[in-house]
Amino acid sequence: MNERQRAQRPGGRSARVGAEVHQAVTELISERGYGNFTVGEVAARAGVADSSIYRRWGGLETLLTDVALTRLNTRSPMPDTGSLAGDLRTYAAQVAREITGPDGLAVVRLAVALSSNGQQGLQARDDLLAERTRQLQSMLDRARERGEHAPDAFGVVDHIMAPMYIRVLLGMGPLTPDYVDGLVDRLL
Amino acid sequence: MNERQRAQRPGGRSARVGAEVHQAVTELISERGYGNFTVGEVAARAGVADSSIYRRWGGLETLLTDVALTRLNTRSPMPDTGSLAGDLRTYAAQVAREITGPDGLAVVRLAVALSSNGQQGLQARDDLLAERTRQLQSMLDRARERGEHAPDAFGVVDHIMAPMYIRVLLGMGPLTPDYVDGLVDRLL
Repeated sequence: MNERQRAQRPGGRSARVGAEVHQAVTELISERGYGNFTVGEVAARAGVADSSIYRRWGGLETLLTDVALTRLNTRSPMPDTGSLAGDLRTYAAQVAREITGPDGLAVVRLAVALSSNGQQGLQARDDLLAERTRQLQSMLDRARERGEHAPDAFGVVDHIMAPMYIRVLLGMGPLTPDYVDGLVDRLL
Repeated sequence: MNERQRAQRPGGRSARVGAEVHQAVTELISERGYGNFTVGEVAARAGVADSSIYRRWGGLETLLTDVALTRLNTRSPMPDTGSLAGDLRTYAAQVAREITGPDGLAVVRLAVALSSNGQQGLQARDDLLAERTRQLQSMLDRARERGEHAPDAFGVVDHIMAPMYIRVLLGMGPLTPDYVDGLVDRLL
């Protein structure tokens, strides 16, 4: 199979459409902010039919969380270093780097926007959280299987993720490596 | 001095204007959200001149944080129960009640809006945080003066406030009294 044939396969076309739609969403969030664009505008910018977006994602809320989840999974994947302390330190450092970078509060902005967007918004927010919690839980389960004593996923969110997000949100100083490692050590 | 004279004093008029402007801001936030109204629109709704608002508050960002701070101070005042555990439990319970109520994420929404509103926005956000941190620090200082061992204000934000805010923001279940007290006990 040559490159041309590969590009014509349905999977190839579907992946391209997905990438174009994701790119259009990212641009519209950056230009206008959440809540200030429609599925029609995403479709027009991506060069696809509205119906393609509704068929694949169901609606704007699901599309927004799919874009956010793709970004999270790419930029803050759950590590597998062989020890819980190593995994949590690596993960916390990734999150710290991500949320102090350009548009680091993207996930907070999305959660705020979805929270005030009716039942579909709340469902999309819950689905996003459930998927990331599932990944985090896998990391903790691996530690337990190795015989390590692991906190639950809520503990990680409460005492590692939450302080970092709130500090960035409120502009409470930089997230130094010492501070981030300290959150992990304190929890463990 | 009778009621009529009291109402005519400059302080009385100033307080009335302040209340009307605050009310106008609260309504506009509720109707349109942050970032979607101007000082001119606040002034028109409150029935005052634009120049009165600029003279008293300097700009929209400072006015927004003044409204938020007034709400926080009214609804979540720093308690003084005579013990640090009592103060922190009372304060945490107040915050939990407030942020799970109608528009409980008002402060988060404001912080997000100010964070993306240039230098004036960041300054207003920092001033709001500094004022609440100062109040919290007073509560912790009182505990130290009584001979109690108190965490610093950052510890309270990181491990009591942050988990509650992030749980509400992400829709992670109710903030039960056991959970809220547990955050306080864990920190102490």
